[in-house]
Amino acid sequence: MLDTRSETSSGLATFVARARWEDLPEEVRRAAKRSLLNFFAAAFAGSRDSASDIAWASLSPFSGPARATVIGRPGRVDVPLAALLNAASANIHDFDDTHVRTVIHPTAPVAPALLALSEHMPVTGPELLHALALGMETACRIGNAVSPEHYRRGWHITATCGIFGAAVAAGKLHGLDATRMLWALGNASARSAGLVETLGFMAKSFGVGGAARDGLLAAVLAHNGFDGPSRPLEGERGFLSVLGDAADEDEITEGLATRWEILKNVHKPYPCGIVLNAVIDGCLDLHARAAGRLDDIDSITLHGHPLLRQRADRPDVSTGREAQVSAQHAVAVCLVSGAAGLDQFSDAAVADPRLGAMRRKVHIEEAADMPIAGIRIVARFANGRQETVTVEHARGTDQRPLGDGEIEDKLRTLIAWNAPGMAGQAGALIDLVWGLEDCDDASALLTLARPA
Amino acid sequence: MLDTRSETSSGLATFVARARWEDLPEEVRRAAKRSLLNFFAAAFAGSRDSASDIAWASLSPFSGPARATVIGRPGRVDVPLAALLNAASANIHDFDDTHVRTVIHPTAPVAPALLALSEHMPVTGPELLHALALGMETACRIGNAVSPEHYRRGWHITATCGIFGAAVAAGKLHGLDATRMLWALGNASARSAGLVETLGFMAKSFGVGGAARDGLLAAVLAHNGFDGPSRPLEGERGFLSVLGDAADEDEITEGLATRWEILKNVHKPYPCGIVLNAVIDGCLDLHARAAGRLDDIDSITLHGHPLLRQRADRPDVSTGREAQVSAQHAVAVCLVSGAAGLDQFSDAAVADPRLGAMRRKVHIEEAADMPIAGIRIVARFANGRQETVTVEHARGTDQRPLGDGEIEDKLRTLIAWNAPGMAGQAGALIDLVWGLEDCDDASALLTLARPA
Repeated sequence: MLDTRSETSSGLATFVARARWEDLPEEVRRAAKRSLLNFFAAAFAGSRDSASDIAWASLSPFSGPARATVIGRPGRVDVPLAALLNAASANIHDFDDTHVRTVIHPTAPVAPALLALSEHMPVTGPELLHALALGMETACRIGNAVSPEHYRRGWHITATCGIFGAAVAAGKLHGLDATRMLWALGNASARSAGLVETLGFMAKSFGVGGAARDGLLAAVLAHNGFDGPSRPLEGERGFLSVLGDAADEDEITEGLATRWEILKNVHKPYPCGIVLNAVIDGCLDLHARAAGRLDDIDSITLHGHPLLRQRADRPDVSTGREAQVSAQHAVAVCLVSGAAGLDQFSDAAVADPRLGAMRRKVHIEEAADMPIAGIRIVARFANGRQETVTVEHARGTDQRPLGDGEIEDKLRTLIAWNAPGMAGQAGALIDLVWGLEDCDDASALLTLARPA
Repeated sequence: MLDTRSETSSGLATFVARARWEDLPEEVRRAAKRSLLNFFAAAFAGSRDSASDIAWASLSPFSGPARATVIGRPGRVDVPLAALLNAASANIHDFDDTHVRTVIHPTAPVAPALLALSEHMPVTGPELLHALALGMETACRIGNAVSPEHYRRGWHITATCGIFGAAVAAGKLHGLDATRMLWALGNASARSAGLVETLGFMAKSFGVGGAARDGLLAAVLAHNGFDGPSRPLEGERGFLSVLGDAADEDEITEGLATRWEILKNVHKPYPCGIVLNAVIDGCLDLHARAAGRLDDIDSITLHGHPLLRQRADRPDVSTGREAQVSAQHAVAVCLVSGAAGLDQFSDAAVADPRLGAMRRKVHIEEAADMPIAGIRIVARFANGRQETVTVEHARGTDQRPLGDGEIEDKLRTLIAWNAPGMAGQAGALIDLVWGLEDCDDASALLTLARPA
């Protein structure tokens, strides 16, 4: 009888090596395109962050042949460095897609490896989309196998699992056979890393960027015959056992080709911790309803899932990075500005005294019956009246996913925010992503993602 | 009262940042030089391995400015890539130094980062030696804190802890202050990786090489202001908690500056698993004693520590890599060839029918009273006589360390083995290492480590 428990790595490698574009369901293709649009939006936004600037300044002096685009910037760098820098940018604000069960941001480590390779070797639109879907699927399935213990222990799962996604995706572009695809997984296993302790610091971006770069290199090495163990995932001293606690390896191969994790990916409307999405939805609603009476607000009480208070009860914030996980700040910007974009979560916004005054009026109550994606907001006014807003499902959740147009708008907004001079390229980039099936040269995406 | 448990990372960073060459004890300087000599020997040997060839062929197309030497090869590559390739070469055969308590090979990830930087910025001999000692100390102390559970769980400790050593050593060359040194540790924590499952495969070398490269980059990033968490080691989701089980963080800072782990480093005489050292010592002795009667041997029985049988009972081997962990093959080469160098553990040697015949005569018995570094060998001859050889402490152990001259001979032998045309450079390289205190430009080491 077949011992399926010993065939996880090779089963996954074989699936990816043999997968055919023709067999990729239409809804999976569409999900990959939505994630790619959202990826570009997040990468444009992140490329203006100081972490991106310092990484660029630090690493580009070592760059090799300058073939590959860094999204939103003039100039090019070598292929693995572009993978690192674009992955870092895409994930800096946690504004990229989220696989809810694992909290993996699967596109950030995978797409940059593929985009960089498209400037290094011939890659068609379908090849890029197919590899992206397979890579994201691999990262999420490995994540499922070790969740929730893995993240809870302190692993930054986007990086630790993302490297495997980048490796098989880059391997697919190289046409690796099943044996070499297995070696790509093995090489990736040697560099799987990333700690939750680094979140909130630039160091996080070295983890995520390194996953994209090393996943790409793991595949290039395997392509050239650099061998790895036969059971890098399920071996006695392999990934699942060493980085997992009570891992369920069946999650990796069960239903491959029929059940797609990429369909469970969601996209964020706001550049904040996911627990704040409902708060922002509700406060934007309140801003519209209570226009003209905002100065009369005495207090705002948020009745939310216990995690809201535990993660986001931060009345005093001093940096934009902190503001992204402050419920008080989220309430204040929505009520004062009627907006919740990157400008509202900048260092400058934090220093605005009107926001400081509003933050001090916000209190959080734990409501055990409230879902994580919901909120009840009670505003009390000076005249004794009160206004209540309830959000059952925030935008950007499974129950209320962003529409295609909303993702397009996010991309337009963030390109314009990053570089007003590039705003005119947004439409062409959006059209190209939707039409990738018919694109002979996927590197055309990058031509539209850098200053003309 | 001071909470010392929250000061481990910053305590270590402060120590490294403030350490002065003048305070480095003479015996520590000497230990660093011995390790450096042994490092060059191992790197020359490993640079001929196919894993080195494939890594070079795969990664050099992405190389940036070709400033840095790859030991034993003509041509140069960029600084981080040289760190990766030299670390991989130095550790391929596990022929580099060993910190016995942790089984870390501390020089392999640390020295290549420093040597590559010496071709990128001005580095004097004392600066290189000092940074090397501090980096090795850091790697071994962090290893002590998580041993033995960390390796037992499946972490390839040379890579996981080595990256921190590379980071602080490279940080020291950059003159980082305590805050930036802490960030270097934090950036390194985001890329700490390596699995025991990859041992015996080329993938291992991507782990160790990646540790050297990313440790170096962690320091360069920190130098430019790329920040990290304040407690990357002891934080709730930091290295000790996530990659350790029951870690003892006091091991990291206790006795810093007075107790040096580098003094517990040993150097291997043979390119084999450490459990085989005593077997080889004894069989070389037997070869000398029984010269002329070897054809009459009926059987060889090894009475050794249980680990010998568990790790190295491999009568059938098909590759040089397997032969390095086969007790039967070790016995055979010693008795048939009177030698135990890299040539005796090659694919070609394995195929020699005389060795195959001898391997089949070797049996292993567990002797619970035998130390790991000892062996009792009983040879039985056709005429009924028997010869017994007992080794209490193998060469290359704490109790019987290699002499300086033996390390020099190892380097001479392996340079000549790698590249006969470079044999003439060995003497000058040895002299330069011993005289590093008086060397103004440490990159002179590399001039002697590549073809003239």
